[in-house]
Amino acid sequence: MAIARPAWRASTCSRSGSRFMSTTRAICRGRKLIRSYKRFAAIAAAVLCSGSAFAQSNADRIIDYELANSRAYETLSHLTDNIGPRLSGSKNAGLAVTWTTKTLRDWGLNAQNQAVMVPHWVRGVEHGSLVSHNDQKIVLTALGGSIATPANGITADVIEVASYDELAKLGRAKIAGKIVFYNRAMDMQMVESGQAFAAYSEAVEFRSTGASHAAEYGAVASVIRSVASASLRTPHTGAMRYDEKQPKIPAAAMTTEDADLVHRLLAKGERVRLHLVLTPKTLPDVESANVIAEIRGSEHPDEVVLIGGHLDSWDLGTGAIDDGAGAVMVMETLRVLKELGIQPKRTIRGVLFMNEENGLRGGHKYFDTAAAREEVHKHIAAIETDAGAAPPVGFITTLEGAALSRMQIRARVLSRIAPIVFTSSKHTGADTSPLTDAGVPGFGLVPDPRHYFDFHHTPADTLDKIDPKALAQNTAALAALAYLIAEDGL
Amino acid sequence: MAIARPAWRASTCSRSGSRFMSTTRAICRGRKLIRSYKRFAAIAAAVLCSGSAFAQSNADRIIDYELANSRAYETLSHLTDNIGPRLSGSKNAGLAVTWTTKTLRDWGLNAQNQAVMVPHWVRGVEHGSLVSHNDQKIVLTALGGSIATPANGITADVIEVASYDELAKLGRAKIAGKIVFYNRAMDMQMVESGQAFAAYSEAVEFRSTGASHAAEYGAVASVIRSVASASLRTPHTGAMRYDEKQPKIPAAAMTTEDADLVHRLLAKGERVRLHLVLTPKTLPDVESANVIAEIRGSEHPDEVVLIGGHLDSWDLGTGAIDDGAGAVMVMETLRVLKELGIQPKRTIRGVLFMNEENGLRGGHKYFDTAAAREEVHKHIAAIETDAGAAPPVGFITTLEGAALSRMQIRARVLSRIAPIVFTSSKHTGADTSPLTDAGVPGFGLVPDPRHYFDFHHTPADTLDKIDPKALAQNTAALAALAYLIAEDGL
Repeated sequence: MAIARPAWRASTCSRSGSRFMSTTRAICRGRKLIRSYKRFAAIAAAVLCSGSAFAQSNADRIIDYELANSRAYETLSHLTDNIGPRLSGSKNAGLAVTWTTKTLRDWGLNAQNQAVMVPHWVRGVEHGSLVSHNDQKIVLTALGGSIATPANGITADVIEVASYDELAKLGRAKIAGKIVFYNRAMDMQMVESGQAFAAYSEAVEFRSTGASHAAEYGAVASVIRSVASASLRTPHTGAMRYDEKQPKIPAAAMTTEDADLVHRLLAKGERVRLHLVLTPKTLPDVESANVIAEIRGSEHPDEVVLIGGHLDSWDLGTGAIDDGAGAVMVMETLRVLKELGIQPKRTIRGVLFMNEENGLRGGHKYFDTAAAREEVHKHIAAIETDAGAAPPVGFITTLEGAALSRMQIRARVLSRIAPIVFTSSKHTGADTSPLTDAGVPGFGLVPDPRHYFDFHHTPADTLDKIDPKALAQNTAALAALAYLIAEDGL
Repeated sequence: MAIARPAWRASTCSRSGSRFMSTTRAICRGRKLIRSYKRFAAIAAAVLCSGSAFAQSNADRIIDYELANSRAYETLSHLTDNIGPRLSGSKNAGLAVTWTTKTLRDWGLNAQNQAVMVPHWVRGVEHGSLVSHNDQKIVLTALGGSIATPANGITADVIEVASYDELAKLGRAKIAGKIVFYNRAMDMQMVESGQAFAAYSEAVEFRSTGASHAAEYGAVASVIRSVASASLRTPHTGAMRYDEKQPKIPAAAMTTEDADLVHRLLAKGERVRLHLVLTPKTLPDVESANVIAEIRGSEHPDEVVLIGGHLDSWDLGTGAIDDGAGAVMVMETLRVLKELGIQPKRTIRGVLFMNEENGLRGGHKYFDTAAAREEVHKHIAAIETDAGAAPPVGFITTLEGAALSRMQIRARVLSRIAPIVFTSSKHTGADTSPLTDAGVPGFGLVPDPRHYFDFHHTPADTLDKIDPKALAQNTAALAALAYLIAEDGL
């Protein structure tokens, strides 16, 4: 469901009705009149569009409080260590809904559940071995959503490709009856230069749609190289989806080591035959929920700054970086505002989304509900945190140009936490993408991304990967930004 | 079987009968006469004990040839990629014996098999889950030699200790019926400062003997923290042994992440109950073999410089660093000498030992055979390479004091490969320990050890961890040192 970009989106100055911000708005609107005084105007805009001193002072308090009194790690410890993995539809995902709801209520917040039906995919046995090479083990994991192999597995020759073009060139004659092996590594130069998410986007294509592309040419299964920036024989799972026009075939990811092994054997000209057993099941959908709690706005309670992370995780690890950390930052932001008694003019609404990983049902449910209530345009910003908890380096945002520059200035108080940089991006988060697609300004917290894909979607996504200090810094950045926007508008 | 240190061990100068070395020996023996000319003596000894120019020149050729024409990586690729894991008694270990024997013979070497009976332990199912915490998975692996749990597993409370003292203090009242969790981390400061093997020795105690210590107090199983310097939820296996006086209980290693999890839960005061299923089997011993080939000495063929690595590996990975690399360095040394037509005065004997990992049967067989033939004292040096293939940094050696200093000078040609440093150590290798215990001077190749225990005994010990250039550098260092000692004596 798409909604036209609302008219108010055009204004990048505050829409606040406060005295101070009225002055700001007047200056902003009056720019044409003083075009010859560009330097003056720039300074004036910088100072006056940068938000109220009151807001800056409260943002200071929020940052100080979180950095000194964070309970984020303690909360995350329960979510990951005590509850454990939280794949949608699982018992643990249900426990996570119950526990976070109760915890928010214990903190004095009005937590509610927004019911949503979610898929219930359950991993089974997963086994790979090279029957052509002394049955040596291939470490692999089923991709989320994959169908099962027959109980006794599939045994077939492996054929390697690095692109859909290669696949098409090989065609049905070469592909039919085989297991297609998609071998595209992450671009490590991009990863190391901080463009890890861009490198991920490039490499993840085969995980999502590789099985159906291979099936189009008669393949009996597909196995990708894990989308990984590090590996100790570590498989990375993730969602795949079938093209309903093609036969469904099982889909797995092998570790980068196993991908390298198969590649080397094929490069020697050897025939490589893989025995693959996967026994996942897709059970009937399960009712689950987004968990929603908010600090109501004092002047414009119907205007909402949404902050969101997701409660569900993959099943291999305990979802500390993806996205226990994000969910906890959202909870902690609400706790800090509540404890400090800070009530911004607009509502800050925390949403712990369900089913980001394999369906985005929670994100769609939230949006559809808001749309049905004609409340989408009441969202003045959607801030998502779903990128781990390494030390914060900035936010991506749908804001551009002058609006982006003003945001950087308005959020200068965040530089007390870390050198926070705002960067334009069309995509600022998955759960909030229905909102941002509808024109709601989006923000995405960016912790240092260089090691995120070392752990992402693996058994190694566990609490020990979280630095409590960095988690608090991220929370402080999220909380302060949400507050600044809720207080002074966007 | 222990043999008294032979008298010849006392001399650190060469025992060669060559003209040049006779002069050297005369100078060495004449030192007392020129004690007042210490400086002169030191220089003379440095120059003249440092070996013949002929030997240095051939060592140059060996180094140049290996660095330019190494086939070590290609050989290792077959051993690891094509044959795969090589646990003693397995089909693959047998294939490794056959293939290396054939390969050495194809290279024109007189490879022989020295039969040895080896244990045949086979890993089965391994499963751990916290029944106290939503059945979340504990990633663990059976220790080599462990007995099985009952088929439906053991479920028991976990009790954590960091030392045998703690265990004793808790005593039977607290330990009986429980699973003992030994939680001692590697000292990462030691690892990072290059003392990784010392850190390993400190931490590995519980792996070897922890089960029987725990059983003494009535424990039903023991689980150690993996002895690891890195982890992505990566279990490290390794040998354990039972004290025949105690009941046998199953023994496993969990990943450092899982160890941290259990530690955190216990530290919160929570009851932690682990369900553990291990189904390994110890089958009857299997006949296997050490693979032995040599370059016969031209003047003293009965005097032997042994170079050795081990053919067997753990079953989780393909044993690239432990010790496919070492075995291949030994093979490659023989190949290079053969191809160059270099025949030193003494014999260089390459031994690919079987069963270093879980029995040392090959090392003992070799020694016992030599002892029965009264040939132990004919071994003038035993050089072992079983520490991976990161860039070489030196050798450990049983030589000390002036002999150590002279070795450093004699082997100066190795500095063309890397800054090779000789360091004294009582233990220079496991397979050669029966020889060095009997007084044979020992050497152990030392590649940079700082990342060795990232991969050691894990599924991640695979060929991609090997840098072909560093493998060739290690081989060049091994080959040149073996040649220098075989040519000029020790």
